[in-house]
Amino acid sequence: MMDEEPLLRSFTTGGLGNRMTIKVAINGFGTIGKRVADAVDAQSDMEIVGVTKTRPSFGCDLAVRKGYPLYCTFNDKERIDAFAPAGYTCMGGLSDLLEQADVVVDCSPGKVGAANKEIYVNAGVKYIFQGGEKHAMAERSYTSSANHEQNLNAPGTRVVSCNTTGLSRTLVPLYDRCGSLKVECTMIRRAADPGDSAKGPINAIKPVLKVPSHHGPDVMTVKPEIQINSMAVAVPTTLMHCHSIVAFLPPGHGLTTESVLDLWRNQPRIIIMNGGETNITTTAEVMEYARDIGRKWGDLHEIFVWEDGVKLDGDTLYFFQAIHQESDVIPENVDAIRALMGTESDWRASVAQTDAAIATYNGI
Amino acid sequence: MMDEEPLLRSFTTGGLGNRMTIKVAINGFGTIGKRVADAVDAQSDMEIVGVTKTRPSFGCDLAVRKGYPLYCTFNDKERIDAFAPAGYTCMGGLSDLLEQADVVVDCSPGKVGAANKEIYVNAGVKYIFQGGEKHAMAERSYTSSANHEQNLNAPGTRVVSCNTTGLSRTLVPLYDRCGSLKVECTMIRRAADPGDSAKGPINAIKPVLKVPSHHGPDVMTVKPEIQINSMAVAVPTTLMHCHSIVAFLPPGHGLTTESVLDLWRNQPRIIIMNGGETNITTTAEVMEYARDIGRKWGDLHEIFVWEDGVKLDGDTLYFFQAIHQESDVIPENVDAIRALMGTESDWRASVAQTDAAIATYNGI
Amino acid sequence: MMDEEPLLRSFTTGGLGNRMTIKVAINGFGTIGKRVADAVDAQSDMEIVGVTKTRPSFGCDLAVRKGYPLYCTFNDKERIDAFAPAGYTCMGGLSDLLEQADVVVDCSPGKVGAANKEIYVNAGVKYIFQGGEKHAMAERSYTSSANHEQNLNAPGTRVVSCNTTGLSRTLVPLYDRCGSLKVECTMIRRAADPGDSAKGPINAIKPVLKVPSHHGPDVMTVKPEIQINSMAVAVPTTLMHCHSIVAFLPPGHGLTTESVLDLWRNQPRIIIMNGGETNITTTAEVMEYARDIGRKWGDLHEIFVWEDGVKLDGDTLYFFQAIHQESDVIPENVDAIRALMGTESDWRASVAQTDAAIATYNGI
Amino acid sequence: MMDEEPLLRSFTTGGLGNRMTIKVAINGFGTIGKRVADAVDAQSDMEIVGVTKTRPSFGCDLAVRKGYPLYCTFNDKERIDAFAPAGYTCMGGLSDLLEQADVVVDCSPGKVGAANKEIYVNAGVKYIFQGGEKHAMAERSYTSSANHEQNLNAPGTRVVSCNTTGLSRTLVPLYDRCGSLKVECTMIRRAADPGDSAKGPINAIKPVLKVPSHHGPDVMTVKPEIQINSMAVAVPTTLMHCHSIVAFLPPGHGLTTESVLDLWRNQPRIIIMNGGETNITTTAEVMEYARDIGRKWGDLHEIFVWEDGVKLDGDTLYFFQAIHQESDVIPENVDAIRALMGTESDWRASVAQTDAAIATYNGI
Repeated sequence: MMDEEPLLRSFTTGGLGNRMTIKVAINGFGTIGKRVADAVDAQSDMEIVGVTKTRPSFGCDLAVRKGYPLYCTFNDKERIDAFAPAGYTCMGGLSDLLEQADVVVDCSPGKVGAANKEIYVNAGVKYIFQGGEKHAMAERSYTSSANHEQNLNAPGTRVVSCNTTGLSRTLVPLYDRCGSLKVECTMIRRAADPGDSAKGPINAIKPVLKVPSHHGPDVMTVKPEIQINSMAVAVPTTLMHCHSIVAFLPPGHGLTTESVLDLWRNQPRIIIMNGGETNITTTAEVMEYARDIGRKWGDLHEIFVWEDGVKLDGDTLYFFQAIHQESDVIPENVDAIRALMGTESDWRASVAQTDAAIATYNGI
Repeated sequence: MMDEEPLLRSFTTGGLGNRMTIKVAINGFGTIGKRVADAVDAQSDMEIVGVTKTRPSFGCDLAVRKGYPLYCTFNDKERIDAFAPAGYTCMGGLSDLLEQADVVVDCSPGKVGAANKEIYVNAGVKYIFQGGEKHAMAERSYTSSANHEQNLNAPGTRVVSCNTTGLSRTLVPLYDRCGSLKVECTMIRRAADPGDSAKGPINAIKPVLKVPSHHGPDVMTVKPEIQINSMAVAVPTTLMHCHSIVAFLPPGHGLTTESVLDLWRNQPRIIIMNGGETNITTTAEVMEYARDIGRKWGDLHEIFVWEDGVKLDGDTLYFFQAIHQESDVIPENVDAIRALMGTESDWRASVAQTDAAIATYNGI
Repeated sequence: MMDEEPLLRSFTTGGLGNRMTIKVAINGFGTIGKRVADAVDAQSDMEIVGVTKTRPSFGCDLAVRKGYPLYCTFNDKERIDAFAPAGYTCMGGLSDLLEQADVVVDCSPGKVGAANKEIYVNAGVKYIFQGGEKHAMAERSYTSSANHEQNLNAPGTRVVSCNTTGLSRTLVPLYDRCGSLKVECTMIRRAADPGDSAKGPINAIKPVLKVPSHHGPDVMTVKPEIQINSMAVAVPTTLMHCHSIVAFLPPGHGLTTESVLDLWRNQPRIIIMNGGETNITTTAEVMEYARDIGRKWGDLHEIFVWEDGVKLDGDTLYFFQAIHQESDVIPENVDAIRALMGTESDWRASVAQTDAAIATYNGI
Repeated sequence: MMDEEPLLRSFTTGGLGNRMTIKVAINGFGTIGKRVADAVDAQSDMEIVGVTKTRPSFGCDLAVRKGYPLYCTFNDKERIDAFAPAGYTCMGGLSDLLEQADVVVDCSPGKVGAANKEIYVNAGVKYIFQGGEKHAMAERSYTSSANHEQNLNAPGTRVVSCNTTGLSRTLVPLYDRCGSLKVECTMIRRAADPGDSAKGPINAIKPVLKVPSHHGPDVMTVKPEIQINSMAVAVPTTLMHCHSIVAFLPPGHGLTTESVLDLWRNQPRIIIMNGGETNITTTAEVMEYARDIGRKWGDLHEIFVWEDGVKLDGDTLYFFQAIHQESDVIPENVDAIRALMGTESDWRASVAQTDAAIATYNGI
């Protein structure tokens, strides 16, 4: 597929030279898009060449404040011209933006991916989709710790969903250590984001009646060797998802509860804290911790694992983890850009570079 | 142990003669007590000889309206005399009540069981504790479908918690059919009852950091052959608990998704409905259904299983069930009375009798 | 207008003879319709001739259980015929139902009133709309205590919304006593009904930005003499609305906090309780009280006023009241039927008859 | 009173010389304390000389990260020595801290104010209490726009609560313009803070049965000329309080809806936005806006007024405002320090200085 794409303008085989920065477009400047933009903007090897909005709306203000060039999601003149009377300078349509870009991060609302992919391919830019799109459409998927190398120099990929990213963070190192892993997971999902006041339920638990759910098996798009099924319920909270995980390790794994914790402590983007000692016993206190340490938007890019909620009982490992649905995939998008551009083949090196840059604007 | 209890006044070996009704005391007339009282009151072979309150309070009104003799939870004259000025006729203290009773259903707040047990034994009455008390204290536990026969003529027992009762309803017939069963369960628990406005969280998920939790293993107090572990989280809803269950059937089980459903359809106190067809897709709509069919307090004594949330995948069975925490144990308490009194040795016969009587006041 | 309606089949001037019952159709058998049906069904001077559903759905079961003849909301054969394959006996379309009826209670979802009114007028039946429809369309509005007499023998009316009905219950007697009344009210509204899991917000307060809101002034459709404005917010709860009311009494009113309470104690459909004494301090405990006293669906037809939340400070009266949005208008619908049919001209007599009949199925 | 305080070490009559910074101690480093510390730390004329914690706990980490000297709330050696084994350097007890300070901001949990005041007075430091303490104890109260000048050089004051501060922001300029103001206000209060998962209710509205509530009249501690009463309810949300306000202007006020808005636009610490245009229609979206513009902790120091929720109808002004309970008093604490120290007598100058400094760490 890749060699069929003559339009691809740049970096066909070996990545950037030292003097260049990767030019990144953000198509869709909403919950995910605005966060990816800031994370990209902080990287020394990348720059934001523009972000898109569908129409002149209050959300444009944020782009203006940050100094990101503003483009229209569409190409027709009428829509583009509508920005000026509202006081926003619109630099053009999506096509104009793509001409400036090496790679586009697609943060548009789900289910328009197939149409967008064609646009990106035709424009000769690499593309990154989010987890709302299907693996089959994107042709490959990505998390930093699972399959960075397999995404090197690919024309495009999909950063998997917040839930899958979170599962990958803790399960991939377990698999890598044990050589085999079978997992049953229940996802207790926040029903709406904090800034979304339209969705319910206000007072109910909503099971996802498709059993098993799609969430767990999605891990296999980045690490096919892990056998995983999941069930999911939505509950009336806005803060975080919580995973209740049972992992069956192979006989002779040689691990203990403590050595599992150590494994995760050596893994990036996992925070391990003891609920009893810190009084961080619910997702509310986890989010308060993120606010306290000065994280922008109160985000938590890391997966939160309760130390006292981990127990290895024979070959069965039980643990809880909390997932900040608005932000855990943000650094993965940055790493995925480096993978596609072929500028960093070592996932741990990319992660270290990404996280150090993010730390400059994101508290401690 | 039983033959060491000479004080036991009645029904030592064979139960009631035809002419007699079992005299039941309710110690503690709160959320559970008021419901057990009504269920017992509806049975033709039982009568309520009294209920207790700790002090004259608004809750006494309900006992007065129902015509249940009102007693004080304590025996000292001062406390008993405090009821009259508040306008309530108090018939005496707990000891006076126990003199009238064959069996006492202890519905007092948890953790006072050990002291109460001594009082009951000394008074020569049989006793039933609720799931808030420990199995070891009560010496045995009970659910109708799991171990009715083993409780026949026992001096006392413990009706297990709402969660354990619910698990027993669906898992015991599976075990009985398969001869072996291993279960991992995540309990998504309502954080407070509908009439309790003091407890939170308002906007958080709270994992129970003791892993595995005590809830699942409690099933083994009534059916030791089932291997079960559980994890639990509390979520901001008041209506029902929801169980996300993974059951590993033994090879050669011969079951299908449909035959599992049929097994449950032939089991009492399980409601199976299709969420897609009925639009009953959350615990809110389940509770609305209970209101619609005229259930008192809007209760649902049955376990609710979503037909389209059941999937047997090879040897692994996935399903969701919803548990009405305020009421599913109510009919079990009635059956447990018959077990202790030795008046009905067939659990299915007792269940049929209990449920038919409850139906007279409890909608369709 | 009334004498222009030659099609009106019955009760043209004086109401029913002794031997007859009022034939009532319910158009729309949902949250309100099912409750009105039961209330009507309990009246000795009324009978349900049928209820409508738009299509064969799970909600039809309730009609079948209650024995109410089932009709289709529409008249086309295809839709009517669709009920049989689903196992329901459909007696015909709306027109067939209206032929059997003296009066139709329109409980269809809001905003279809104008079209329905024409159907009802053409069919020669009297009609009652709910508060979701506009006063101008219905031409008049109704609450039992405000303007029963003005609705006598009218062709149709509108039972005002749950909020307006609740305000009318407490404000009309105040006005009648004082001869003048100016009111500012803030309505803290439940955002969704208990059985509705789709709507939010989960964690927010939503002010109604149209200021003043329409809720308060709607009182003037039944009692134009009361000067009232209101503001409203929606909050994440499903149980009840709560009104925070400031009423300015005219100088020389001669009332005290206690005499205001007495005024309300002599008014039907108001419950006054002391939060401090009963521990009923939130809408959760109010609803629990309704469950405890055995109310069907856990409904509370009465307005709940906290005795210790009432304070007359000079000429300014402060009080809170809680409104059960699913049910407070139910008895008003029954009274409205008698008003339109002209069978009972005394509102207090109608209320007494309605409430006594409802009490037969509705707890204490 | 002031001239009776010979212990007062510094700035007795005229404030700081140019070369000095005000030395500020924070007694209690929790929700309010940590925010006040950061706001003070950002001011060029102030410095944090230390913060206190009752014991070595997870909350100390934040002080360490920020570089604030850590002290023990108590003076006994045993408690002070307990910090070292937990890995924290404790500089001493409260008395040691007060020796370093010109002014202490008391952010301890409510109701210990009287005891603390004696300590502060004896130590010769000026003191600022928070709204949880009583006006009578503190002897005077403070908001920047209401009575800065009256607090100049006072020995101590009380920054009023979040609600009172919010009311003062919008009502004081109205009063100043009109010369008379009568207000009825309903406060719809968040029931718990975002990081507090213990409190309910989960699904209820809880009226404050003391009517009128204390919240509104508290405004008169800073602006006695405003006549105000209030009612309050708590609702299941964690984000913000919302005020529903009816203000009666004197005849001849000469204002219009638009001129009221202009009045507020010229007032510091009020944000006015149009809900219809911005889609910011609930407190959830208001808080999301604060996150978007990069505010630390996602705080909003300003009062939020919905432009389309303001309506002047004759002499009656209706409006809604949203109050971020965790943070709106933070800049007021900074201004109050300058008032007590006598270093800036013009409230608008202090506000401008405070807010400019806060903006350096607090987004746009």
